[in-house]
Amino acid sequence: MTSETTQHSGHPVTMRDVAEAAGVSIATVSLVINDKKNARIGDDARGRVREAIRTLGYRPNALAKNLVSGHSKFIGLVADAIATTPFAGQIIHGAQDEAWKHGYVLLVANTDGNADAEREAIGMMLEHKVRGILYSTWYHRAAAVPESLRETDFVLVDCFSPDGDAPAVVPDEVQGGRAATQLLIDSGHTRIAIINTTTPSPAHEGRLLGYREALEDAGIAFDPSLVFDALPEQEGGYDSVDALLASGATAVFCHNDRVAMGLYDGLRRRGLSIPEDMAVVGFDNQEVIAAHLRPPLTTVALPHYELGAKGVRMLLGVDEHRRDELVTVACPPVLRESIGEARRVPTA
Amino acid sequence: MTSETTQHSGHPVTMRDVAEAAGVSIATVSLVINDKKNARIGDDARGRVREAIRTLGYRPNALAKNLVSGHSKFIGLVADAIATTPFAGQIIHGAQDEAWKHGYVLLVANTDGNADAEREAIGMMLEHKVRGILYSTWYHRAAAVPESLRETDFVLVDCFSPDGDAPAVVPDEVQGGRAATQLLIDSGHTRIAIINTTTPSPAHEGRLLGYREALEDAGIAFDPSLVFDALPEQEGGYDSVDALLASGATAVFCHNDRVAMGLYDGLRRRGLSIPEDMAVVGFDNQEVIAAHLRPPLTTVALPHYELGAKGVRMLLGVDEHRRDELVTVACPPVLRESIGEARRVPTA
Repeated sequence: MTSETTQHSGHPVTMRDVAEAAGVSIATVSLVINDKKNARIGDDARGRVREAIRTLGYRPNALAKNLVSGHSKFIGLVADAIATTPFAGQIIHGAQDEAWKHGYVLLVANTDGNADAEREAIGMMLEHKVRGILYSTWYHRAAAVPESLRETDFVLVDCFSPDGDAPAVVPDEVQGGRAATQLLIDSGHTRIAIINTTTPSPAHEGRLLGYREALEDAGIAFDPSLVFDALPEQEGGYDSVDALLASGATAVFCHNDRVAMGLYDGLRRRGLSIPEDMAVVGFDNQEVIAAHLRPPLTTVALPHYELGAKGVRMLLGVDEHRRDELVTVACPPVLRESIGEARRVPTA
Repeated sequence: MTSETTQHSGHPVTMRDVAEAAGVSIATVSLVINDKKNARIGDDARGRVREAIRTLGYRPNALAKNLVSGHSKFIGLVADAIATTPFAGQIIHGAQDEAWKHGYVLLVANTDGNADAEREAIGMMLEHKVRGILYSTWYHRAAAVPESLRETDFVLVDCFSPDGDAPAVVPDEVQGGRAATQLLIDSGHTRIAIINTTTPSPAHEGRLLGYREALEDAGIAFDPSLVFDALPEQEGGYDSVDALLASGATAVFCHNDRVAMGLYDGLRRRGLSIPEDMAVVGFDNQEVIAAHLRPPLTTVALPHYELGAKGVRMLLGVDEHRRDELVTVACPPVLRESIGEARRVPTA
């Protein structure tokens, strides 16, 4: 058999059916559906049409309605890999929730970073007369703004124009780095290491800056021998253990939760305990990892949901911003058990 | 300043601009854009219109085009949490790639399992005259088919109707369970445990059945004392270690990669090595975990990308199926290092 058999059954309810049930003309039904406030239709007839629509289960043709109004209720979301990465899908979630709140629907296109796919996706969205487009990357970085984006309103999400000429919303890496470091300072540590990523990026620079600022505010001298770079995944954390222990650090801020996970393995292999022998804080709050390590990992969350929601609010003008503004969203700490109680550690 | 300043600049190219550049009437431009094959337009004029569209960067109004053709090029994807779970986002990815291949665009709505949001999402899609709807869940389960879905073509993805009256595509849990167990048998093990989930589900029943079938085919007697149930996350694996070791098993098939991750921690705490003291195979292929454990975890992949792609092919009739058919997609093994080389183990 063919898929023809999956065809839905039943005759769809038409505008004519509604008109007959309401005892009005098709033109009147159309005016009610398209919400023409000035049309001279009695409240009684309008009420009968609405009642008939409800009773019959008539579905107005949104394509026609959008054409009449000259615009659609779509917001486009172009992403390089967002729907397929472990946790940045929260950007979609936040954008969608916020879009719905304002009566908009999300058109999602994933481009895998392919320029042709990207051009095609943006073109498709423009042809559907979207209200605007969110252009998003799966990790925080500079991104060249595709020329066609400028044919409509747009907001960059989790990325920014290197030329500083486009509205954008990104995580506040500096504040996040400060927050992570502050948790360790508050717990009494003074010899605090950072295992940063080897990749130059806003996360690399921003978190390191936040780390330095927090130390400075606490009156702890910055010590370059406590700064390590490693691959931003489990293997990087695991391979950093020897150098970390040799440094005399009693606490460490890891570039992300995956690095912390590898570090856990490396510390355990040496027979060391967390947080007794080493207090650890991560970054990202990748739930499937952070919440389930032994002990559960205290970390700082990347605010993906809020990035998506904020992007929509900026696009719709609900939240005001300048056309070239780089808006940041705070990265909140998530407390679990890898730091332990406050204590006093002698300065090395 | 307000977001008004983000308004894009420039006058959009109109159909009139195209007509003037091509030296034809607006009606002719419209006919070319809407691909009216029977319209009497010379190849020369048609070519000039297309050239003008390209040169001017005119974007046809897809809303108008869809209205003329009576249908849209949308496929809806309604998901209960798909865009927000660590790896089921691959369903979106597969669906979108396949939809694009056939000239369709994906409208994505995430409902968080909320019935009102679901009704609204399906209603919105019907009003946009979608070609059909994929209805998807973030883990394989039975799902009641919302009544409004039956107003259009639809395919259930990663879920199925308990009444067996709807087309669906789901992972082949039995084959996956067989594949996982077979890897351990091929490596010479005969005392093979399974740590299953505590939750009744197609994954629970299917993988256990596959485990039993593989043992039976290999002439290994099924031993109920080798079947354990645990929470399907790290804690469940960790807490199963004592019972697992007491059973005399030399190899274990874990319900998912998270259980395997917890088991790794538990075995290590006992000073045991993987795969020397215990061969381990997982399920899911959750990359961020499986590929980065020590040793990297051999597992069986949930075919999320293929579920999405197959769903679209079924919906469009590219792949034929019966209207009530439950189509399964194979779960492929992913070989890493947690089983080790083939060896002979004496039967207990």
